[in-house]
Amino acid sequence: MHVEGNQRWRLLLAWHGGGYVGWQWQSNGLSVQAVVEDAVSRFFGGVPVTARAAGRLDSGVHSRGQVVVVDVPEARPVQAWVRALSTLLPADVTCLGAAPCPPDFEPRRAARGKHYRYRWLERWPQCPFRAGRVWHIRRRLDVDDMHAAVQHLVGTFDYTSFRAAGCSARSPIRAISRASVTRVDDEVVLDVHGPAFLRHQIRIIAGTLAEVGQGRLRPEALAGICAARDRLAAARTAPAEGLWLESVFFEPPLHWPER
Amino acid sequence: MHVEGNQRWRLLLAWHGGGYVGWQWQSNGLSVQAVVEDAVSRFFGGVPVTARAAGRLDSGVHSRGQVVVVDVPEARPVQAWVRALSTLLPADVTCLGAAPCPPDFEPRRAARGKHYRYRWLERWPQCPFRAGRVWHIRRRLDVDDMHAAVQHLVGTFDYTSFRAAGCSARSPIRAISRASVTRVDDEVVLDVHGPAFLRHQIRIIAGTLAEVGQGRLRPEALAGICAARDRLAAARTAPAEGLWLESVFFEPPLHWPER
Repeated sequence: MHVEGNQRWRLLLAWHGGGYVGWQWQSNGLSVQAVVEDAVSRFFGGVPVTARAAGRLDSGVHSRGQVVVVDVPEARPVQAWVRALSTLLPADVTCLGAAPCPPDFEPRRAARGKHYRYRWLERWPQCPFRAGRVWHIRRRLDVDDMHAAVQHLVGTFDYTSFRAAGCSARSPIRAISRASVTRVDDEVVLDVHGPAFLRHQIRIIAGTLAEVGQGRLRPEALAGICAARDRLAAARTAPAEGLWLESVFFEPPLHWPER
Repeated sequence: MHVEGNQRWRLLLAWHGGGYVGWQWQSNGLSVQAVVEDAVSRFFGGVPVTARAAGRLDSGVHSRGQVVVVDVPEARPVQAWVRALSTLLPADVTCLGAAPCPPDFEPRRAARGKHYRYRWLERWPQCPFRAGRVWHIRRRLDVDDMHAAVQHLVGTFDYTSFRAAGCSARSPIRAISRASVTRVDDEVVLDVHGPAFLRHQIRIIAGTLAEVGQGRLRPEALAGICAARDRLAAARTAPAEGLWLESVFFEPPLHWPER
């Protein structure tokens, strides 16, 4: 609802997911949505604020660039937004950018695509400074096999095999426009681009690719697992802590003013 | 006490200090010592184990290379140590190396020096992924002034001005053999080498250098602050979360066998 004098602002938010039940309000713990709504509310003297994101992230998942909108009662300079939120948000949630936007801008509807990254650390011994940020796996991963495997999932498919039991999407049909598995420094990294994803889709793909990487599944098996349209055909869901929302894409791309 | 059949082992330990009250057992929370003793004890079927380190670290301080000894009832291969501890230790504490050592090796007495690093992030906005790992400071720091300032503390001095109230050391005389302040990527970093340090010494130095970096204190003032031998002459103690024990030096250097 657009009230006279109200302004809609979009915010670019990064957070470490370890301390949160995910983006969305939950009864069982602190959500990023709650801390963002609280911070924006305090910035505007206590007015009630509702924040809406381009998508929900699971508990423990990290964000480098979630896009969120809020409606606020008056205009404030961009620099004031970023400075105020830096003080009002907890240290593990950061507002990277802020900009006014049209009153009908809805990030979930407007988003054209997302880039997710899944990170494995196969280093031995493990790295204590990446606990909660990667999936530490104790065996060497075959990156070429993993890359070959995930190519079988690029395209438009019924991804029922890679969909969590509790997924509320009406259709299991989605598209993956690009996917790769590469080594980045001492990590193995899965990058997936697509317009939208099912609940746990990336994590179930990552869990299945981990089986391929350890030689317990042939790369070609992915085609059959997808065609089976059966969650039990895929492997177990990879831990949330290895998953990063890297960015949300819009057309035209969102511009974030210099502070 | 060296019991027949016992073996003394030295361990190289890295940890993220955020979840711990420091190295040493405390009644008010979980110490790294407690989790290490528990892990080594379980590795040897439940025998009681005492771990002794080259020095205690405060609550929240991080380690990249603490050296610790334990006495255990029998020989085990190096690889077994590292693998077992990787499983038995929590994900934010890692055993990087293990080696048998003489039964009279005491890391605290044998250590010839330590390298501590203090990290500031002055990036704006802050980085949510470095919360608890750096001191996030909202103003630009003058690194040249900070570097000039810390040179006044290199040498052998009475460091009473940089000593915590609760410090139990008999003498306030210590030596700093080398100190520098530099930019490393987007961080400002203080590196200090010396044979041994007083309680909170590096953090009080870091707190005082932060004042210099923000232009509230001239670099030359450090000489007078040190000469005052008065804790109130120095600035407030910098947060523990920015402090990293980088390494402990021995002569001859400790060799850590390949796994």
